[in-house]
Amino acid sequence: MTQTFFGQINPPARLLMGPGPVNAHPRVLRAMAADMLGQFDPEMTDYMNQTMELYRQVFMTNNRWTLLVDGTARAGIEAALVSLVEPGMKLLIVRAGRFGLLLSEIAQRIGAEIVTLDLPWGKVASLEQIEDAIITHRPHVLACIHGDTSTTMAQPLDGVGALCRKYNVLSYVDTTATLGGMEVATDRWGVDVVSSGLQKCMGGPPGSAPITISDRAAEHIFARRHVEAGIRGSDTTDGTRVRIPSNYFDLAMVMDYWSEKRLNHHTEATTMLYGAREAARVVLEEGLQARFARHASASRAVCAGLRAMGLELFGGDEHRMTNVTGVYIPKGIDGEKVRARMREDFEIEIGSAFGPLQGKIWRIGAMGYNAEKHKVLLTMGALETVLRHEGHGFAAGAGVDAALAAYND
Amino acid sequence: MTQTFFGQINPPARLLMGPGPVNAHPRVLRAMAADMLGQFDPEMTDYMNQTMELYRQVFMTNNRWTLLVDGTARAGIEAALVSLVEPGMKLLIVRAGRFGLLLSEIAQRIGAEIVTLDLPWGKVASLEQIEDAIITHRPHVLACIHGDTSTTMAQPLDGVGALCRKYNVLSYVDTTATLGGMEVATDRWGVDVVSSGLQKCMGGPPGSAPITISDRAAEHIFARRHVEAGIRGSDTTDGTRVRIPSNYFDLAMVMDYWSEKRLNHHTEATTMLYGAREAARVVLEEGLQARFARHASASRAVCAGLRAMGLELFGGDEHRMTNVTGVYIPKGIDGEKVRARMREDFEIEIGSAFGPLQGKIWRIGAMGYNAEKHKVLLTMGALETVLRHEGHGFAAGAGVDAALAAYND
Repeated sequence: MTQTFFGQINPPARLLMGPGPVNAHPRVLRAMAADMLGQFDPEMTDYMNQTMELYRQVFMTNNRWTLLVDGTARAGIEAALVSLVEPGMKLLIVRAGRFGLLLSEIAQRIGAEIVTLDLPWGKVASLEQIEDAIITHRPHVLACIHGDTSTTMAQPLDGVGALCRKYNVLSYVDTTATLGGMEVATDRWGVDVVSSGLQKCMGGPPGSAPITISDRAAEHIFARRHVEAGIRGSDTTDGTRVRIPSNYFDLAMVMDYWSEKRLNHHTEATTMLYGAREAARVVLEEGLQARFARHASASRAVCAGLRAMGLELFGGDEHRMTNVTGVYIPKGIDGEKVRARMREDFEIEIGSAFGPLQGKIWRIGAMGYNAEKHKVLLTMGALETVLRHEGHGFAAGAGVDAALAAYND
Repeated sequence: MTQTFFGQINPPARLLMGPGPVNAHPRVLRAMAADMLGQFDPEMTDYMNQTMELYRQVFMTNNRWTLLVDGTARAGIEAALVSLVEPGMKLLIVRAGRFGLLLSEIAQRIGAEIVTLDLPWGKVASLEQIEDAIITHRPHVLACIHGDTSTTMAQPLDGVGALCRKYNVLSYVDTTATLGGMEVATDRWGVDVVSSGLQKCMGGPPGSAPITISDRAAEHIFARRHVEAGIRGSDTTDGTRVRIPSNYFDLAMVMDYWSEKRLNHHTEATTMLYGAREAARVVLEEGLQARFARHASASRAVCAGLRAMGLELFGGDEHRMTNVTGVYIPKGIDGEKVRARMREDFEIEIGSAFGPLQGKIWRIGAMGYNAEKHKVLLTMGALETVLRHEGHGFAAGAGVDAALAAYND
C-alpha cells in the first residue's frame, strides 16, 4: 500500500506586509539549500568566521564577538539577558510596548531585581528620562527595544551608551525589528550587547539570532564561566559570580565555540547559518545607507497612502519606525474581516495588534525584501479596494495615487 | 565600487560518515526553499498540525503534545529538563557517556538535586540497575540518553517506563542520535518526554528539535504555568510550583502556541518547520521498519568491513547503535592524519572522539540519507586505501569485500 503523508510543502505565495515574518529574499532561501558540513570542518569554520565579519558590518561594530544564537530572535534576547544578568542584579527596563514587557518577563524568570521606565504605548523615552531613571535606580544593566513592532515606534539610542558607561551600567538592545532596515549603530550608540533576528528587515527566515557583544560585556560573561572539570562546569572560575543558568544560552560557551578554541557546544544550525550569511551578503551588497533609504521611502509612501484613504496613523511621525506603520481601524469597519479579505482576495497579509492596541489598529509592514515600490503600491491598492467594499468612504484611487506620488516626490 | 562580501555559499560535497551532522536528504533541503507564511496564517497552522501528526508516527506515540522546539537537539534537551525539573527536585541521570554528562551539566544549572547511575563508557544499564537506583534514590525524574554517539552504545528502554510509573517517577529520554534510524518506541517504552534532532538519522539539518510529551508530563508542566496578567506571567496558577526559569524553553507556553489556543510565543522557525515536516515525510514514506532494517544492514557492513581490515571495534555488539560504530585507531597510526586524508583525498568525513575515548577511536556513522550501500562501500574502500598508505597492513580489498559480503548475505 502506497501511503502519502500529507502533500509536498507548497505554501500559497502570500505577500507578507505585516510586522513580520515577511517574505525571505530568494537568494537566502537558495543558499539554504546547500548541503551540510561537519561542525568542525575547516570549510564550516571558515563560513562561521565570514558570518562574524559580515555581521560586524551589519551591526556597524568592531566587536570581535559577533555571532549567531541558534534559535529565533527571542532566543537571542534570552541568551543576552541570561548571560548578562545575574539573579539579584538590578535591571532597568525601558518598557514602551509588548517587547519591553517581554524583557521583564524573561528577567523575572532569571531572578533579576527589575526596575522599569514605563511609557505609554506610542511614546519613547528621552535621554533625560533614561538618565533620571539610572540615577534613581542605579541599575547594573539597562535593557531596551530599538523598534517595538507592537507600537511601531523606534527608541532613539544615540547617547544611551555614553550614559550607561558614565554610570557603569551594562546595556542591552533588541533590534529584531530594525536590523537591516533602520540604522543599528552599535559602536556609535556605545551599547554593549545587541541582538536581532532574520525575519524582518534582514529578509531571511526566523530561526537564527545574530548578536554582537562588546569586550567589556564579554569579560563580564566570561567571568561567569565555569572551569573544565570532566565535563565543563562544576566549579566557578572565581567564587564571586553566579553561574549562567542555561547551557544552551551560555554565551561564554557559545563564544568559545565561535573562537579559535572551537570548544564543542551544540552543533551549529548549519542551514540557518547559510541563510544568515546570505542575508547579510544581500544587505551589504545593497549597502546599509541605500537600504535604510529604501525603507524610509516605503514608509513615506505607506503613510501617504493611508492618510489619503482618510485613515489616522497611530503615534507621532518623529519616532515612527520606517518599516512598520500602525493605522487606526476606522469606525464601523471590522478589522479582522478586512485582514481576511486582504488575504483571501489579494494574497496579502497585513497585521493585527496586541495588548491595548488589539482591535484598534492594523500594522502594515514594508520590510527587507518587501520594502519595494511595487509591493507597497499593490498593498495600498488592495487595501483601498477592500475598505471601499466594506463601506469606508473616500475617493477611489486616492490611496494608491498618494503612495505613488510619495515615491515620485 | 562593486564590493563582494565573500562568495556565494558553495560547500564542498563532503560525504559525512561521522557521528553527525550528516548529509541532509535533498528533498528536505528543497522543501526548505519554500517561502515564508505568517505565523498565524491558516496555511501555517495547518502545516504545524501536520507536523505534529507526522512526528507522532515517527515517535511511535499517541501523545497529543508532539511538536518542535526551535533550536538544535540540545535546545530540545534543555526545554525538556527545564520544564520538567524544578529546583531542588531529585533527578536520577543514567550516565554512560558524554551526553549523560551533558544532562547533568544542564540539570546543575537548573538547581536540581542530581543523583546518578554511572557506567563505564561502552556499557549500558540493566533494568535491574535502574530499578535499584530508583529504590535507592527515589527520584522525581529519571533522565537518560537512548543512543550516546560518544560511546556508540544504545541504552535498552523497554520496561523503563513501567518501572518509572511504578515508583511515580517522570521520565525523559534523549533520542537525538537514534530517531528515524533505530526504534524509538515512545508509547511501548512508556516514557514521558522524548526529544530529538534532525541532523542524524532523520536526514535533515540541525536546528529543529522534535519533542513528544505524555499527558501526565504535560499536566506537570502546565501546573508550572503562570496566569495571564498583562503579559503572561506575574502570578502562579497555584502557589506550589516553581515557575519554569526560561521563557524560550517554557514548554507550557510552547504547547499553548501549538494548541488550538494559538497563544503567541516566539515566531515559529518557518523554514526549519518545513524541513522537519519533509524529513518526517521521507522517513514515513520509506516506513519505519524498512528504515531501521536499512540502518542495521549498514551497521553490519561497516562492522564487517572494519574487522576485515584488522581493526578492533569499540564496545560489545549487543548494545551497539546501528548507525554509528566506534573503532580503535590501530597502534602506530595517527588518527587525525587519517581523518584529514579521508577528507582531503576522498571528501569523506569520519569522526574523532571525546573524553576518555579521545585519540583512541574513530566513529564511523551511516545515518539517515547516508545509511546507503554505496556510501558504506565507498567509505570502506577509502578508509582501507588511507590505512594501507599509512602503513597499517592487511590484504588490499579486504575491507570493502567484507562490507559487500555483509550486504549480500
